[in-house]
Amino acid sequence: MTSTVSTTDVPSGLPACIPTPEPGDPRLARLSLNQRTTANWSLREAVDGCVAAGIGSIGVWREPVAEVGLDVAVRMISDAGLRVSSVCRGGFFTSAEPAARAAAHADNIAALDEAAALGCDTLVLVPGGLPAGDRDLAGARGRAADAVGALVPAAADRGVRLGIEPMHPIFAADRGVVSTLAQALDIAEDHPEDVVGVVVDTFHVWWEPGVVGQIARAGRRIVSYQVCEWITPLPADSLLSRGMMGDGHIDFATLTRAVAEAGYTGDVEVEIFNADVWAAPGSDVVATLARRYVELVQPHL
Amino acid sequence: MTSTVSTTDVPSGLPACIPTPEPGDPRLARLSLNQRTTANWSLREAVDGCVAAGIGSIGVWREPVAEVGLDVAVRMISDAGLRVSSVCRGGFFTSAEPAARAAAHADNIAALDEAAALGCDTLVLVPGGLPAGDRDLAGARGRAADAVGALVPAAADRGVRLGIEPMHPIFAADRGVVSTLAQALDIAEDHPEDVVGVVVDTFHVWWEPGVVGQIARAGRRIVSYQVCEWITPLPADSLLSRGMMGDGHIDFATLTRAVAEAGYTGDVEVEIFNADVWAAPGSDVVATLARRYVELVQPHL
Repeated sequence: MTSTVSTTDVPSGLPACIPTPEPGDPRLARLSLNQRTTANWSLREAVDGCVAAGIGSIGVWREPVAEVGLDVAVRMISDAGLRVSSVCRGGFFTSAEPAARAAAHADNIAALDEAAALGCDTLVLVPGGLPAGDRDLAGARGRAADAVGALVPAAADRGVRLGIEPMHPIFAADRGVVSTLAQALDIAEDHPEDVVGVVVDTFHVWWEPGVVGQIARAGRRIVSYQVCEWITPLPADSLLSRGMMGDGHIDFATLTRAVAEAGYTGDVEVEIFNADVWAAPGSDVVATLARRYVELVQPHL
Repeated sequence: MTSTVSTTDVPSGLPACIPTPEPGDPRLARLSLNQRTTANWSLREAVDGCVAAGIGSIGVWREPVAEVGLDVAVRMISDAGLRVSSVCRGGFFTSAEPAARAAAHADNIAALDEAAALGCDTLVLVPGGLPAGDRDLAGARGRAADAVGALVPAAADRGVRLGIEPMHPIFAADRGVVSTLAQALDIAEDHPEDVVGVVVDTFHVWWEPGVVGQIARAGRRIVSYQVCEWITPLPADSLLSRGMMGDGHIDFATLTRAVAEAGYTGDVEVEIFNADVWAAPGSDVVATLARRYVELVQPHL
């Protein structure tokens, strides 16, 4: 198994290469390109790449939006006729220090404003890791839960849902202290369903005992479904360890059916952090992910 | 933070270097050297290294025991007056293929025999990962549970306890499909407490939501307590990503107190898979781990 992206490769166990779906193919209707999958593309290139491939939705990151300016980004995406499936990302609110907490809150309010301006109803929240030198994981988790609660009124005002993203435990120390879908739901369920939800990312939750039951429990609280693969051997940089669907160990059929049965009808983002994927031409990556998506994910929606 | 081992370094946040504890220091009474921490030492060297450092217990691996022969190993360890805190490892029984399952079962019986011969009452079970090309994680978990059950009569006959080791989810695909202490206990609780237990390894469980409660639930089923550290950035080879206690993010005080309050009175193994640790002279590694143990772990037992 490899994370190398080519335009001819096929997932392990699949009988033959299928053609890249053409623009207009109804199977692409719910596919969204998360910008980080083609990290070397500017927002302009990503928007054009989606249009060229017949992908009608994009998951945007705040940094490339800021690069062109929010107004320009809004117009660029709107002129192209794309939906914005999610804004990545808010969160990073585990600090115990009051000034840092206030700054994180203000930054999350700004992220909500940006989501609203982009016509997007979902802000992805990555909780953040343990503050430097802090070993109190339970404390950091409590502060993350409190910070979500503090954002609820502003999110409700703007009609933007907060999506708590549980992160694979590989990131518990340095990126996301919320480690399971069960734990994310424990936080979300303290708040109204139409304001606080969860992000189901296959990379983060595929290993979780009872994950299918937790997806059912999530129900309408699923605000985003993101797909990418767990590959072995794990790439050296754990942050860039995600693979292309079909190159690894995740059972996309089971997880996707569970998400569909929970009532999720939104877009499906492909979000792959991987140095090999980033090194490949963006248009090749988009073609490959579209094929893999229609082979491995879309049939189960 | 770094995983580099020196004889003078001190854990982050500790005020000053403490002297290496001398042989006979009562604080070393329950410390055990897991052989993989000094992977370049032969069994002979590890036994001598324990004696020189005043460490009265050793966690042995089957491969270095087989290198010298079981009888020689038994005599060597007994002549040195060491306890064997655990035998690593049985398990790797997730295959769906009957011949492979039978072979895994036979190998685990052999491991039980070796543990009994070594006078050790604990066999560590690492369940194994997903078989090649298999994406049915729930199925593999079920087969692991069945394989544990199949070993119960032989373990009881030999007076050796089976210790199911939940593995950090980073290893769910390729090494250990049992991912949480809660899940390991779900399996263990189907069997008598004096035959099937669990291994609590700080590296594997530190991130688990509710882990303190799960340790309390485990109670007398804790058959081994192993300590090592979660460090960031994670070393490139995930298998060798463990650090020396104090170099990372784990709250050893809380976990150790929970293990003690659960009633665990056995040895505490230091088990560190790390290329930097392995590259350091074994006697330096032993001195460092003894210091870190008496600073960070032993006071909470």
